[in-house]
Amino acid sequence: MKAVLSPEEGKHKFVLKTPKGTRDYSPKQMAIREKVFTTIINCFKRHGAETIDTPVFELKETLTGKYGEDSKLIYDLKDQGGELLSLRYDLTVPFARYLAMNKITNIKRYHIAKVYRRDNPAMTRGRYREFYQCDFDIAGQYDAMIPDAECLKIVHEILSALQIGDFCIKVNDRRILDGMFAVCGVPDSKFRTICSTVDKLDKVSWEDVKSEMVGEKGLAPEIADSIGEYVKLHGGLSLIEQLLQDPKLSQNKLAKEGLGEMKQLFEYLALFGISDQTSFDLSLARGLDYYTGVIYEAVLLQQQKNDHMEESVGVGSVAGGGRYDGLVGMFDPKGRKVPCVGVSIGIERIFSIMEQKVEASEEKIRTTETQVLVASAQKKLLEERLKLVSELWDSGIKAEMLYKKNPKLLSQFQYCEETGIPLVAIIGEQELKDGIVKLRDVATREEVDICRGKLVEEIKRRTCLP
Amino acid sequence: MKAVLSPEEGKHKFVLKTPKGTRDYSPKQMAIREKVFTTIINCFKRHGAETIDTPVFELKETLTGKYGEDSKLIYDLKDQGGELLSLRYDLTVPFARYLAMNKITNIKRYHIAKVYRRDNPAMTRGRYREFYQCDFDIAGQYDAMIPDAECLKIVHEILSALQIGDFCIKVNDRRILDGMFAVCGVPDSKFRTICSTVDKLDKVSWEDVKSEMVGEKGLAPEIADSIGEYVKLHGGLSLIEQLLQDPKLSQNKLAKEGLGEMKQLFEYLALFGISDQTSFDLSLARGLDYYTGVIYEAVLLQQQKNDHMEESVGVGSVAGGGRYDGLVGMFDPKGRKVPCVGVSIGIERIFSIMEQKVEASEEKIRTTETQVLVASAQKKLLEERLKLVSELWDSGIKAEMLYKKNPKLLSQFQYCEETGIPLVAIIGEQELKDGIVKLRDVATREEVDICRGKLVEEIKRRTCLP
Repeated sequence: MKAVLSPEEGKHKFVLKTPKGTRDYSPKQMAIREKVFTTIINCFKRHGAETIDTPVFELKETLTGKYGEDSKLIYDLKDQGGELLSLRYDLTVPFARYLAMNKITNIKRYHIAKVYRRDNPAMTRGRYREFYQCDFDIAGQYDAMIPDAECLKIVHEILSALQIGDFCIKVNDRRILDGMFAVCGVPDSKFRTICSTVDKLDKVSWEDVKSEMVGEKGLAPEIADSIGEYVKLHGGLSLIEQLLQDPKLSQNKLAKEGLGEMKQLFEYLALFGISDQTSFDLSLARGLDYYTGVIYEAVLLQQQKNDHMEESVGVGSVAGGGRYDGLVGMFDPKGRKVPCVGVSIGIERIFSIMEQKVEASEEKIRTTETQVLVASAQKKLLEERLKLVSELWDSGIKAEMLYKKNPKLLSQFQYCEETGIPLVAIIGEQELKDGIVKLRDVATREEVDICRGKLVEEIKRRTCLP
Repeated sequence: MKAVLSPEEGKHKFVLKTPKGTRDYSPKQMAIREKVFTTIINCFKRHGAETIDTPVFELKETLTGKYGEDSKLIYDLKDQGGELLSLRYDLTVPFARYLAMNKITNIKRYHIAKVYRRDNPAMTRGRYREFYQCDFDIAGQYDAMIPDAECLKIVHEILSALQIGDFCIKVNDRRILDGMFAVCGVPDSKFRTICSTVDKLDKVSWEDVKSEMVGEKGLAPEIADSIGEYVKLHGGLSLIEQLLQDPKLSQNKLAKEGLGEMKQLFEYLALFGISDQTSFDLSLARGLDYYTGVIYEAVLLQQQKNDHMEESVGVGSVAGGGRYDGLVGMFDPKGRKVPCVGVSIGIERIFSIMEQKVEASEEKIRTTETQVLVASAQKKLLEERLKLVSELWDSGIKAEMLYKKNPKLLSQFQYCEETGIPLVAIIGEQELKDGIVKLRDVATREEVDICRGKLVEEIKRRTCLP
């Protein structure tokens, strides 16, 4: 054992690290993470969602054929006998498997869990191989665009509540994209691969995209150019109206259907008061294969600027989703479809921003919730401290004591200062005799004697949240 | 794709299941799970713990040599190029790795996360291959037995709060075990393997344990018999006093040290008021290699009985832990030790019991928290419902509406009955004209007109928790 672990032995160099692309969360990071999760979960619950959980791995074949080109990024488990397993790549495919397996046709659920991608990590930009997704999905056959509009409302509520700066939600529809490809003359067989190329427009220039279309994917330059005319368009209701009149697009059944529903969607978004942050954007394509209707992506409009960092964390998309009406049917033995629409909040990038904000503000974040430290000024009072702290725990008070037989009073006060504990309950021989406790306010240093029977009540009164 | 997925095609049979030994959690199960977690987290926070998180997988070498015979149960990831990785087997080794990596010498932290063991699953008994552990650990050099006593207090608080029946916390010490082995004449090299055999005493008879000691592990029968005399002992302070006088044990330095601290521990447990549920038990050994001092395990004393099930879930140990002073040092390049003691709550068995309790009580568990359904009696009011539900969301009210253009009033009421939504906010032409909303109490069917500006306040008043 020791031979393996101590580098002195020289046989093995033991590397003390987390796997590539992963990280630990420190207590401080966890405090920020909990805050973000609470905001998100509150929103999901406000919209009446239930929650489910699925295993971290699935049968390999469950994931096969769902992610297109990205399938190479799936983590497989070693074949140790038994089933072939893979770590989940997202929460959407496990959700669809769950619906099909349990024959559920209607559900509104959220699921917050880690997913795994063997991607090239860019950890400073919040891109990891293990990362959280916060998914909200509505499954069921409903009237058009009502659940879809609610998903966008949810993105808007969450990004507003998190106060991470201005954002824009880009919206498009796979049917409009496919209709556009058709009227531009793209052969049917190339729809998905050209769609993947269009998806790169948020990272590279139109020239590069065009050259991929023509060079790699064999599209005629004129076809690429006419796609280019469309994908530069973005706007609101008036753009939708304009395209509904577009001589080419309006002749395509799919595009017309998509545009008609897009109009309806924007009317609902207006009722929700979120049209201003929403943009119908024909360049939005989304990578995943399984989308069948409306798609969307939320991007932050400006980078965080602060006094401490010249160069700030560059973050792009923080949420995305869309409609996938065919995925559940892929798992159903009879191919029965369950229409679904959902959204996934990309938490890691949001964490990066929040962490940076906290660093910048020099705001002190508490990592515990302890209300009171049980302390003593004199020696030989360990037993009395144990009794008092136990009384407080049993009354629901968050309390600590130092794990020393005879700690110094000063070190007990210092511990409170360091960890943000607001109160100290001090006992000594005299206090014990008198049946009282000296309650000290750490901030003001004021001390008052409290009758021991009233201590719990007094601590609760002083530490209740406003 | 379709060829793979539809069994009709006959090429592949697609199996719709979760991996062996794993399960999904339905919304109802999640509601129970959340309740259990809340109880546990509240307790950990009451004791001043911070929380951390670590990746679900570690470098394979991080886990190597920590689990003794159980190492064969570790899940490895497939070698897809890059590092060799394994899924975490517990939360203790990642915690020790975290402490060494960050040079942390003092921390009190909890960690609730899933761990993975390629064990033989017994899912009806709550034994899974993917399962939650809820760990609380105290790291740091402190006065003897104070943190150890707090860990036992925590087990006691949690099991009491969960109300899952009577329990007993068995306590022993590796030093007492090793001292006992020494005075009985077990050779040093066989301490750990004999310890593993003793650990089986909660499942098999002494005769079987003895025959393993003698047959498989080559111990002389007299030695096994003298171990047999000790391991049948269990009791409280008086047993400790008795053993401190034991002519053989009292001569052994390790045993004497262990017994002396055990006495101190029991005095602290008395101050915490939990001696009655704690038993010093010389048959308790614990499987894991890394324990160095006090060890403990909580077992439920009786099985759940109820009207609906003749045969009830048999559950054994629901929490366990101990002191492991050497583990962090195994990761530190200079071998610097950080003494640690901790406890792990085994949630899955507790879930099984809670689920069974809920089934038996026929208690209706809500899986959402929706306070009000926005409804209309008349047609063509979709837009008005969207506007109202959006107003409510923006005011922090948990609200839903049916995703239909013209739902029937009855189906809106039925939805509330099914999902437990207590209130319905009904709007019609007249209400809109009058600037009011009809608020219906689902349980009493009473309806009152509320001025729209007062609606939020009224919903909050009616649905605030007592």
